[in-house]
Amino acid sequence: MTSHGTDGFFVSFEGGDGVGKTTQSRLLGEWLARVTGRDVVRTREPGGTDLGLVLRREILHGQDMDPRTEALLYAADRAHHVASLVRPALERGDVVITDRYLDSSVAYQAGGRTLSVDEVENLSLWATDGLLPDATVLLDLDPTVGASRLTAAPDRLERAGDEFHRRTRQAYLDRAAQDPARWVVLDASGTVDSIHAAVCAAVAERLGLTGVPLPGEPLSDEVG
Amino acid sequence: MTSHGTDGFFVSFEGGDGVGKTTQSRLLGEWLARVTGRDVVRTREPGGTDLGLVLRREILHGQDMDPRTEALLYAADRAHHVASLVRPALERGDVVITDRYLDSSVAYQAGGRTLSVDEVENLSLWATDGLLPDATVLLDLDPTVGASRLTAAPDRLERAGDEFHRRTRQAYLDRAAQDPARWVVLDASGTVDSIHAAVCAAVAERLGLTGVPLPGEPLSDEVG
Repeated sequence: MTSHGTDGFFVSFEGGDGVGKTTQSRLLGEWLARVTGRDVVRTREPGGTDLGLVLRREILHGQDMDPRTEALLYAADRAHHVASLVRPALERGDVVITDRYLDSSVAYQAGGRTLSVDEVENLSLWATDGLLPDATVLLDLDPTVGASRLTAAPDRLERAGDEFHRRTRQAYLDRAAQDPARWVVLDASGTVDSIHAAVCAAVAERLGLTGVPLPGEPLSDEVG
Repeated sequence: MTSHGTDGFFVSFEGGDGVGKTTQSRLLGEWLARVTGRDVVRTREPGGTDLGLVLRREILHGQDMDPRTEALLYAADRAHHVASLVRPALERGDVVITDRYLDSSVAYQAGGRTLSVDEVENLSLWATDGLLPDATVLLDLDPTVGASRLTAAPDRLERAGDEFHRRTRQAYLDRAAQDPARWVVLDASGTVDSIHAAVCAAVAERLGLTGVPLPGEPLSDEVG
């Protein structure tokens, strides 16, 4: 049983846009399904629920808004996501892998803007009734490299400028350094396969999965 | 200058659905425009802004949601309403009259549901950076009378049951009793004119408007 009091496993991916969170989330999900036999729920914030999609559209593509409104919309999305999807899955014993969670709010809003880290974190912890991931993978990349990987039209946050993205990256790194038992920081400039192997090793350790074959290693029943 | 540090006047109407808030808000606005010469902005929560209309639809007519999500959506609506409409108007020296404000959240969510008064109030105070009305008019009515006045299709809150509405009414009354300098409680079962006169007298006192003619009294330049 993990810190959230369920039999499930809860993993979040964090980092800037374009660092490979979606790809690594998919690969980790496939691997965890294989080695644990559990159902895997892959989701994201903002926008992991029907309500969340409405809020995501307003946050990313709506009119300009002040920092408190933005923080509250992210928190509302998160509260509904956790109450209606994440926590029920964890209570079934599933693996939940989310592309962004509360650390995104702290890094983007507190690291990048005008609200304090404590304000934003307390808001998210209230929204989720204190639910934290068992493992959080930060895919770390120089923001100028991450931006060059993006192909779609940039949204409001993506246009916010280099200095904003530098502060956000530093906020992530500071946060990871404060809680190494939950966080793993990986250089996102490597190959997909090498990053995947590192993700699996770090997540397995944090979920207490001992003796499972890592990617590239043969499954035990294929040996001999 | 009032407690919010602007030259404007900020008045909220509270009470159950069907008690006459919209009518009394309109009449008060017309009277305040006449006796103060100020611009009057009439607005409401939820839904006083474009974003607010989106949130109002989700709150009142969307899927079921847990109490934290609902509280955060109301708080997001309020934050945006205050930052983009209410505070700018107060800073221009206008009169702002809102149909519902943070006391609705406290009464409906804390009085009626599972969150504590402090949690809901602190969330709203954070959302608004502490903005409180100069005067809050509670139009108080037995909930069973208020319900009988409604003609449109009931929304999710309106269907929530008598016990819920009784607890909400009591939460309003308790709250008003704790801060009589801001609140006035009026029996909403009287005539429109008699309630209007009482609203004007109570609001004038709380806004420090001395010597203004009340409804039914002649304007000073009409005397003689």
